[in-house]
Amino acid sequence: MAPATPRFVVPIDLKKNPWEQNAPLHNRWHPHIPHVAAVNTGEVFRVEMVDWTGGAIKDNDSALDIKFLDLSTVHYLSGPIRILDNDGVPAQPGDLLAVEICNLGPLPGDEWGFTATFDRENGGGFLTDHFPCATKAIWYFEGIYAHSPQIPGVRFPGLTHPGIIGTAPSMELLNIWNERERDVEENGIKSFKLCEVLHSRPLASLPLTKSCLLGKIRKGTSEWDKIAKEAARTIPGRENGGNCDIKNLSRGAKVYLPVFVEGANLSTGDMHFSQGDGEVSFCGAIEMSGFLELKCEIIRGGMKEYLTPMGPTPLHVNPIFEIGPVEPRFSEWLVFEGISVDESGRQHYLDASVAYKRAVLNAIDYISKFGYSKEQVYLLLSCIPCEGRISGIVDAPNAVATLAIPTTIFDQDIRPKNNKVPVGPRLVRKPDVFKCTYDGNLPITRNPSATS
Amino acid sequence: MAPATPRFVVPIDLKKNPWEQNAPLHNRWHPHIPHVAAVNTGEVFRVEMVDWTGGAIKDNDSALDIKFLDLSTVHYLSGPIRILDNDGVPAQPGDLLAVEICNLGPLPGDEWGFTATFDRENGGGFLTDHFPCATKAIWYFEGIYAHSPQIPGVRFPGLTHPGIIGTAPSMELLNIWNERERDVEENGIKSFKLCEVLHSRPLASLPLTKSCLLGKIRKGTSEWDKIAKEAARTIPGRENGGNCDIKNLSRGAKVYLPVFVEGANLSTGDMHFSQGDGEVSFCGAIEMSGFLELKCEIIRGGMKEYLTPMGPTPLHVNPIFEIGPVEPRFSEWLVFEGISVDESGRQHYLDASVAYKRAVLNAIDYISKFGYSKEQVYLLLSCIPCEGRISGIVDAPNAVATLAIPTTIFDQDIRPKNNKVPVGPRLVRKPDVFKCTYDGNLPITRNPSATS
Amino acid sequence: MAPATPRFVVPIDLKKNPWEQNAPLHNRWHPHIPHVAAVNTGEVFRVEMVDWTGGAIKDNDSALDIKFLDLSTVHYLSGPIRILDNDGVPAQPGDLLAVEICNLGPLPGDEWGFTATFDRENGGGFLTDHFPCATKAIWYFEGIYAHSPQIPGVRFPGLTHPGIIGTAPSMELLNIWNERERDVEENGIKSFKLCEVLHSRPLASLPLTKSCLLGKIRKGTSEWDKIAKEAARTIPGRENGGNCDIKNLSRGAKVYLPVFVEGANLSTGDMHFSQGDGEVSFCGAIEMSGFLELKCEIIRGGMKEYLTPMGPTPLHVNPIFEIGPVEPRFSEWLVFEGISVDESGRQHYLDASVAYKRAVLNAIDYISKFGYSKEQVYLLLSCIPCEGRISGIVDAPNAVATLAIPTTIFDQDIRPKNNKVPVGPRLVRKPDVFKCTYDGNLPITRNPSATS
Amino acid sequence: MAPATPRFVVPIDLKKNPWEQNAPLHNRWHPHIPHVAAVNTGEVFRVEMVDWTGGAIKDNDSALDIKFLDLSTVHYLSGPIRILDNDGVPAQPGDLLAVEICNLGPLPGDEWGFTATFDRENGGGFLTDHFPCATKAIWYFEGIYAHSPQIPGVRFPGLTHPGIIGTAPSMELLNIWNERERDVEENGIKSFKLCEVLHSRPLASLPLTKSCLLGKIRKGTSEWDKIAKEAARTIPGRENGGNCDIKNLSRGAKVYLPVFVEGANLSTGDMHFSQGDGEVSFCGAIEMSGFLELKCEIIRGGMKEYLTPMGPTPLHVNPIFEIGPVEPRFSEWLVFEGISVDESGRQHYLDASVAYKRAVLNAIDYISKFGYSKEQVYLLLSCIPCEGRISGIVDAPNAVATLAIPTTIFDQDIRPKNNKVPVGPRLVRKPDVFKCTYDGNLPITRNPSATS
Repeated sequence: MAPATPRFVVPIDLKKNPWEQNAPLHNRWHPHIPHVAAVNTGEVFRVEMVDWTGGAIKDNDSALDIKFLDLSTVHYLSGPIRILDNDGVPAQPGDLLAVEICNLGPLPGDEWGFTATFDRENGGGFLTDHFPCATKAIWYFEGIYAHSPQIPGVRFPGLTHPGIIGTAPSMELLNIWNERERDVEENGIKSFKLCEVLHSRPLASLPLTKSCLLGKIRKGTSEWDKIAKEAARTIPGRENGGNCDIKNLSRGAKVYLPVFVEGANLSTGDMHFSQGDGEVSFCGAIEMSGFLELKCEIIRGGMKEYLTPMGPTPLHVNPIFEIGPVEPRFSEWLVFEGISVDESGRQHYLDASVAYKRAVLNAIDYISKFGYSKEQVYLLLSCIPCEGRISGIVDAPNAVATLAIPTTIFDQDIRPKNNKVPVGPRLVRKPDVFKCTYDGNLPITRNPSATS
Repeated sequence: MAPATPRFVVPIDLKKNPWEQNAPLHNRWHPHIPHVAAVNTGEVFRVEMVDWTGGAIKDNDSALDIKFLDLSTVHYLSGPIRILDNDGVPAQPGDLLAVEICNLGPLPGDEWGFTATFDRENGGGFLTDHFPCATKAIWYFEGIYAHSPQIPGVRFPGLTHPGIIGTAPSMELLNIWNERERDVEENGIKSFKLCEVLHSRPLASLPLTKSCLLGKIRKGTSEWDKIAKEAARTIPGRENGGNCDIKNLSRGAKVYLPVFVEGANLSTGDMHFSQGDGEVSFCGAIEMSGFLELKCEIIRGGMKEYLTPMGPTPLHVNPIFEIGPVEPRFSEWLVFEGISVDESGRQHYLDASVAYKRAVLNAIDYISKFGYSKEQVYLLLSCIPCEGRISGIVDAPNAVATLAIPTTIFDQDIRPKNNKVPVGPRLVRKPDVFKCTYDGNLPITRNPSATS
Repeated sequence: MAPATPRFVVPIDLKKNPWEQNAPLHNRWHPHIPHVAAVNTGEVFRVEMVDWTGGAIKDNDSALDIKFLDLSTVHYLSGPIRILDNDGVPAQPGDLLAVEICNLGPLPGDEWGFTATFDRENGGGFLTDHFPCATKAIWYFEGIYAHSPQIPGVRFPGLTHPGIIGTAPSMELLNIWNERERDVEENGIKSFKLCEVLHSRPLASLPLTKSCLLGKIRKGTSEWDKIAKEAARTIPGRENGGNCDIKNLSRGAKVYLPVFVEGANLSTGDMHFSQGDGEVSFCGAIEMSGFLELKCEIIRGGMKEYLTPMGPTPLHVNPIFEIGPVEPRFSEWLVFEGISVDESGRQHYLDASVAYKRAVLNAIDYISKFGYSKEQVYLLLSCIPCEGRISGIVDAPNAVATLAIPTTIFDQDIRPKNNKVPVGPRLVRKPDVFKCTYDGNLPITRNPSATS
Repeated sequence: MAPATPRFVVPIDLKKNPWEQNAPLHNRWHPHIPHVAAVNTGEVFRVEMVDWTGGAIKDNDSALDIKFLDLSTVHYLSGPIRILDNDGVPAQPGDLLAVEICNLGPLPGDEWGFTATFDRENGGGFLTDHFPCATKAIWYFEGIYAHSPQIPGVRFPGLTHPGIIGTAPSMELLNIWNERERDVEENGIKSFKLCEVLHSRPLASLPLTKSCLLGKIRKGTSEWDKIAKEAARTIPGRENGGNCDIKNLSRGAKVYLPVFVEGANLSTGDMHFSQGDGEVSFCGAIEMSGFLELKCEIIRGGMKEYLTPMGPTPLHVNPIFEIGPVEPRFSEWLVFEGISVDESGRQHYLDASVAYKRAVLNAIDYISKFGYSKEQVYLLLSCIPCEGRISGIVDAPNAVATLAIPTTIFDQDIRPKNNKVPVGPRLVRKPDVFKCTYDGNLPITRNPSATS
């Protein structure tokens, strides 16, 4: 007999707000957020998710919602889900939780998404010193393909994935997070040279009771007050997985997550129809609501067996994963190089972040010559399945990073042409991304040598 | 009528030393190193190259040659080659030189290579604080495949490429290089936080007359003295391409190099039978002698047309390239994640280099469980066609980097196994890499939590 | 504003019989079957389909339903759908209809399928002389993956596609079909040497009023009587596309169909979760119900522009298509060769069908050594995404055909092992396909030299 | 210590005729042709080969050499090579010989090839009734790429392979061959319906002493006389492998050949820079001289273990192989369908050869609309790495075959364009293939409905 169709363990009603869902959502990491569902190993189950902003960003023609988005509200996650083996014994700290992504996609009836970059005063992005304004593009899905009225001439198959998949931290791990991130927030500007090149602020997002959503724990209780003050924000990826934004966690991928609390308490969210390596514009994937169909196995004692701690405690580990077999196939790639010399010409020491910034800037300027605004390309490079690679990390003082772009997503040939001098912008694309003004006073990084 | 077979413009005699070759080699970048050959656009020509050390590393059973290698001698390059169009007009500054790699491979009769990591006092490597000793493995080629007696159980098709392909810098560009790299060498330790995590030294390699080889310019002349003092070292990749160590510059790839001097003065060297992204052990590719069959086109005025300067001068550009169509095909990948928290547990700010270091360390520990020494895996991850990706670069404070390893290169299944507790190292591999002692006093970075 | 979600133009209620659906189904080709829906070019719409037998085959543990299936009932198709351009002008004969498969999959709640081979007296299959019994295996889907309790040790991602997609024929084309197929049915046995090697019977399936379903045309009317006598059966692929069983018509593929009647009258059905080239066991794909999300364009006059008739009339054309970008990716293939010498040792002249039969037989015997029954492998080679290629078709007298099997779908390494003599069947697989007796008297083709 | 470079066991001197080579060539299959070299298992060795015609076809501007080629001279093979294990024991009948193709390519200094179709009176080709004239195109190689002055606008990476790789037959197998092929030659025209659709003649090529070359056996001896009368021609692929013309036997592939005589007596030849599935124009690959670097293993008793006879004797087996990892990568394919209805409109019964003929004819007409002569396209589809697939072989009466063409090999977009009526031939290509007259009287198959 056929097994039942995937069990809906976390359904979403798109007409409701994130805090009104039947299986209550959460937007923080904490060991004491109670699970909302339990599943057995081997069972295929379905989790639905709101988009990371919980519907705050609209399919309209303005980027004001982006500009003023309250970042204390994100990311809205589905779960936690408690994982039990077939004898009913829950996953234990020290186990490894193997999660197979059997299927995924947008929610039926909600086949659209958005890509955006934040205002420099409210979130920024990888290139916020160049692009300080909030911008937004809307994408519509036609099955496997996405296209945007704001970025014409581009249509591509998405490499769909959850931006966030992770287990709950233990209190010990949570404390480690809060401590080390507080340190970077308090001392980072003077400690880290990279702060002079990467201008996203704040440097870290510490626990914040504002907009805190804790699943089944009701606001107003003392429990809520305690947890809300401790619970980690969801912005960075960490030892538990979390917001790793790895585009290859797509159909058929299998991720091995460390288990820190009984039951594992798996949470997921931040569905991306597609994303490029780095997700450079920050709200940079094609953000959407969506579903996951998952199957879990428990590898008892697997953390010790398969993961080696890299840090002062046994909790300093990272997930590993296997890539699935049905990623979009591209054969032709145009690749942009960057070295760890910043826009001012200053040499950095083996800094892959600086090198990648330069590679992305190079790509934006190049592609904009084909009839696009730089803002269009910035969003594009955030959401197409482009590859960001660390090519050289030992040839001091330069790190070399590359950004590889699949050329067939464009309706024109964007490769350089041999043997002739091409002329100016090839094609004027009238539409543009929705864009707000930047009202701050921070200087914009400019290339004195650039023609435009 | 058939065109002549590719013209041999730079032949190598493997029985001779680098400084004795008929078309004299060079190991520095300088606009005044005269070209040793001239070719026309559209012509397929063949360039042969010694390995980057010019034969200093031997196919023997000791790593002493690595430990004491004189790094002032490297890299030995073939060229410069002057490029002319079919009317005899040379490439001009401001042009773009399109170089297609029609074919490449080892030199016939010299089908072997080496992978090594340097002593911490003499070059180091990405993980030199963990692995301070010089080590070496020898690889033998069977057509497209490589295997090493020192790393049993692994055989794989190489993604062969030149580590170095570049044009000559102009004096203006050369001065920019020397100035900015001098700054990092003089002030880097105190300026750059990364120096506390990445321990390769020196921070930069400034011009050095010792071991300087300048092609047709004879040592002892005043010209030699002048150029030797100015000429840039070949270690880092820069605006002219150079030592970018990009594994995808393989058969069929086409690289677009900026032209800074009349004739372009193209040089190549540092052939790699195979390399992983990052080339982490520094002497980390499978280093070999080899040949390139190239075809050039000149895009007149192409620098301005296609490249946008990203820095204070129009010379602050980077090459771009198209990937070729015959790279080895792998379907199954095991991926290791790293975040920008270092081994001491300290949080770094969006630092992809730190994240990648952690991903590589995670992979080494993991694979070593399958019967390998960590030194074997370190060399392996340097030379197999693994992919190092910048997955997340905006989720402050953590950058997320990933290292993807093609699993079919192993003769055993290295994936985690579900539903059972595996036991200990699966397989004892008796041979190991050749290894020297480390005689210095610097502390080794250790994981207090690691089991071994 | 977001466009509406794909419009459901043909919904299926799985609790109803094929002849009870709201948008009535049909199981014959005829120009006068009225359309049940109309769509515009550029619109993404959704068509749902019953499985090709309309639910006659059950998820149970017997193959009797296969053995006694009434083949006059198949295939149940959804449609016809009338295609209009955005000015409301329908597609015209002579146009080309470009149909993009934006998405597809099983129907929610019905995530299972079956693979079977018919009894030799009732449909047979490519190897019916070797395997005269009806057999059946049930497959369950876990997202992109399928697995069968009857064929353990195999799990693979499907290359999902509609077995049937086609436009309605004109009366002229319909007459051509009926005439030429009548000729083969009446004279084929004596005319065609292949009938001595391929034993599927009947040779062709002529119009049959029994079980005829004609969409909106009611049984009992004179119109019904007339059409039922003329309407072509759906078994063979023909000039209109139809039952081409091309596995690569999957997500993102775009098929260009000739238009023979006003409105094109597009019909689809016979959804396959997965199928190998040739669909050798006849009911050989993983047959399922399913949905298609489609988008159409009309290329006015495109038949003349793009298709060349190959036969006595301008109607003798064939569709063309582009393959989509998200097929499952396999890297390792084990390939079986066959030549056009039949099982009796008789030489055939450049006959690719005979060569392919031998390649498939070779593969079955080989894989059965790894612990499978031959019936299991026969069904497996029908439904896994294996590739059947015509390798040599000019080296008289032998055609050479190959069958390439992706090795990673097995949980064991099925490649020959070097340098040692392996021993016997490696693994006993207890479960087997469901199997009926063969009650006929036709001789079974046997290999006198085969060990079992 | 490095192993020696691949040992040259069969060197070729291109200035000599095939019958003058140091390691004498042969052009027939016979167990008594003595081996010219012996190699051990595990050893990498190099075999060089003349092109299949032994230099009879020239790089000139006439197809007369094709028209009058003496087909009794082909194929010139290198070998036989005797295979011994490391104890010096030769391969034995019943063993399986695993041959890995470590590397391959054109001979240095001879980087060109030809593609041709024969005159209908002298060899013909798959479509000889449509194209009865001898034609020829010359290809020049630029590393991995080939281009032809006679077929402009096309450049592609080859999927290089030996058309012929095989072991020597035993006398028993040889007798089987000669007997069954004599039967088809004597009775085929009246026995086989396919002869009315495929017009290549003769139906088979029986032993012929004319032009017979037997390696070390000298002409004029009684041994020569005896063997020459018995020895099988090399045209068809057979149980020993031989002229299978499988394009995927490229770099890294591993073929498992049955052993019929002591030492295996491996022969190779007919190197192809590239070929499409089917090699439709007969002399249809890019034919060239070349080299193979091979490594052999012996699987003792492997024939019985891995191969199942499919015919009256244990010798009725076929080779199997694994595909290598570095085939050219293509992502976009345009596919042409064909069904088993011939050009006269006659229905054939599940005949994949007829279906493939129609698919190829459809592709030729289609691509010729983009500015090519049909002769150009015919040669092109013979030699580009296109895929010929048996898509449906059970839907009686129609077999469905497909021909998939990688679109990126063209310098223009050959896909149908949506939403507009394209106009006429897009581009006039002035050069054409070299072409002879057809002086025979056989009727040419024409499409009455075709526009040209």
